[in-house]
Amino acid sequence: MSYKIGIDISGGDKSPAEIIKGVLAAHKELDEKIVLLGVKDEIEKELAKHKCSKNEFEIVHAPEKIEMAEAPVTSIRRKKKSSIVIGTRLLRDKKIDAFVSCGNTGAVTCAATLILGLIDGVDRPGIGLAVPTAKGGLSLIIDVGANIDCKPINFLQYGIMASAYCELVLHIDNPKIGLLNIGEEASKGLGVIKNVHKILSASSLNFTGNAEAKDIFSGKCDAIVCDGFTGNIALKAAEAGAETVGKLLMKAMKKGLGGKLALLLAKKNLLEFKKSFDYAEHGGAPLLGVDGIIIIGHGRSNWLAVKNAIRVAVEELSRDLNSEIKRRIHEIGQDSRVREVLTT
Amino acid sequence: MSYKIGIDISGGDKSPAEIIKGVLAAHKELDEKIVLLGVKDEIEKELAKHKCSKNEFEIVHAPEKIEMAEAPVTSIRRKKKSSIVIGTRLLRDKKIDAFVSCGNTGAVTCAATLILGLIDGVDRPGIGLAVPTAKGGLSLIIDVGANIDCKPINFLQYGIMASAYCELVLHIDNPKIGLLNIGEEASKGLGVIKNVHKILSASSLNFTGNAEAKDIFSGKCDAIVCDGFTGNIALKAAEAGAETVGKLLMKAMKKGLGGKLALLLAKKNLLEFKKSFDYAEHGGAPLLGVDGIIIIGHGRSNWLAVKNAIRVAVEELSRDLNSEIKRRIHEIGQDSRVREVLTT
Repeated sequence: MSYKIGIDISGGDKSPAEIIKGVLAAHKELDEKIVLLGVKDEIEKELAKHKCSKNEFEIVHAPEKIEMAEAPVTSIRRKKKSSIVIGTRLLRDKKIDAFVSCGNTGAVTCAATLILGLIDGVDRPGIGLAVPTAKGGLSLIIDVGANIDCKPINFLQYGIMASAYCELVLHIDNPKIGLLNIGEEASKGLGVIKNVHKILSASSLNFTGNAEAKDIFSGKCDAIVCDGFTGNIALKAAEAGAETVGKLLMKAMKKGLGGKLALLLAKKNLLEFKKSFDYAEHGGAPLLGVDGIIIIGHGRSNWLAVKNAIRVAVEELSRDLNSEIKRRIHEIGQDSRVREVLTT
Repeated sequence: MSYKIGIDISGGDKSPAEIIKGVLAAHKELDEKIVLLGVKDEIEKELAKHKCSKNEFEIVHAPEKIEMAEAPVTSIRRKKKSSIVIGTRLLRDKKIDAFVSCGNTGAVTCAATLILGLIDGVDRPGIGLAVPTAKGGLSLIIDVGANIDCKPINFLQYGIMASAYCELVLHIDNPKIGLLNIGEEASKGLGVIKNVHKILSASSLNFTGNAEAKDIFSGKCDAIVCDGFTGNIALKAAEAGAETVGKLLMKAMKKGLGGKLALLLAKKNLLEFKKSFDYAEHGGAPLLGVDGIIIIGHGRSNWLAVKNAIRVAVEELSRDLNSEIKRRIHEIGQDSRVREVLTT
């Protein structure tokens, strides 16, 4: 069976060129139908550059563009003809099976929540991001920015959605779920976090207790739950730490003749390393909890990231992720132990 | 004039060996008197290893040890004869001029707050950490863990204390102060953060607006203020990102003969790099807002970090940092514009 994946050609810092390149790469690899949403002329011009006929893809004209820095709610209210709003509507109307955008994260989240609505029983959506770990696998961190003001129930639901995602999409058995905190002891952290610790402990999740920021990369847990404010900052801080060290290290290394020679000798290894640690290799971030499959790509996504985001969307569809999330959210709602902790 | 600096020999993962080594290094470089607090026998044994007479330093016997994982309040209540409690009391009683500890951060913060009290007008203490930036200078991030549940007034006071610290200790003119947030726009983030943005804008600080986690290293601001929960997680995430990339990069580089040769050639450069990026080079973290000079070293501090923490304490003393903080906190309390924003 082949799916219809809608992709936002107007979103992302490298739009439309890299987005179209990613679409063409996905088109070669996958059997799915890809629907292109954006400014028709721009899309056709870009396709022509690749000597690709405009008839090879379904194009949906979306004349308006939501810029990366625009305020989410206002932009989706004012720009009904933007690729983000039209794409989300097509998804709601089942004209497409999934929607992929590297555009304004807030606008995509907002459009999805308002137009698609949430999965039965889910209170807030969350953006999950799969991060490469030192052990070689991937670890999901959720939420990285959809919901900055989290209540304990939101953390529990993130845990459930993350667990389902890890099992179905990342193929991890009985995934270990951690709670982002400033120390490992249950007594650490803000009041709300201590409360969440109790709720997660009472749940049927494979909850392994508090995780520290270093565990985002350690592979100690398969998923780490947190509020969107903390998650977003942790992620950007980790990215910044990694980038700063990487850059300064390269700069320091090439000092002197010996250093320059060393860099030359290590070039192949360094390129391979860059690939293994590149977010682009691991696809986009699933927007979990909304009633439809939406993948949000990094604003800086290149063609490879776009291709992989499309691949992740297909994976979620083929495993019917949202039905499983719905089932598990319903189940936890019936769990008397969890209900008891939630009400005390 | 020479100061008397008390140092906690029992605190830190590498205590007592590295702490004593750091003391000896500081003793060689600085004119100050160093008072050693810890288990007397242990200290004397360690000094003997360096063929150093026990009479060269004043030793204060502190038989109890607060472990790194102990709960702060309980531990300082129960262990009155710990180096942390005794050191803080000596500071209160003006028997020493500053106290340096690489021990349990929470216990040091707690002891300082309860025993020394806070500087007039300061509501909560904050731990500042000077981080090396890509521009080559240092940038202070405050709070990194003293006060996890922050009110807007705490952020303002962190800004004032950070500004004084940057000027007097880091020698930065008119330091730029940023507010840690998930985006640059004033409309971003949690309600409390938007409120803080207004207060800082109304103040006489050189407030440059929101800073993102990447700016911890970019050198865009000279100091970044945040609550202790977010600051602690951001810092550990950045450290984790940096360490993970550093390690994986080295591992990737040495693959094959060419790689091994490259590593050999680059060795000197890499060692120099490690030094420039090492927290140990930049000393301990000042605990700002308490009525006395306290420096908290990283639990993993080696001798160099210890020596530099002592150096930072001397710098704070010689610039009379706390009098300046007191003056500025009083001044901002008189500022009608700030008072207006605070009360609305």
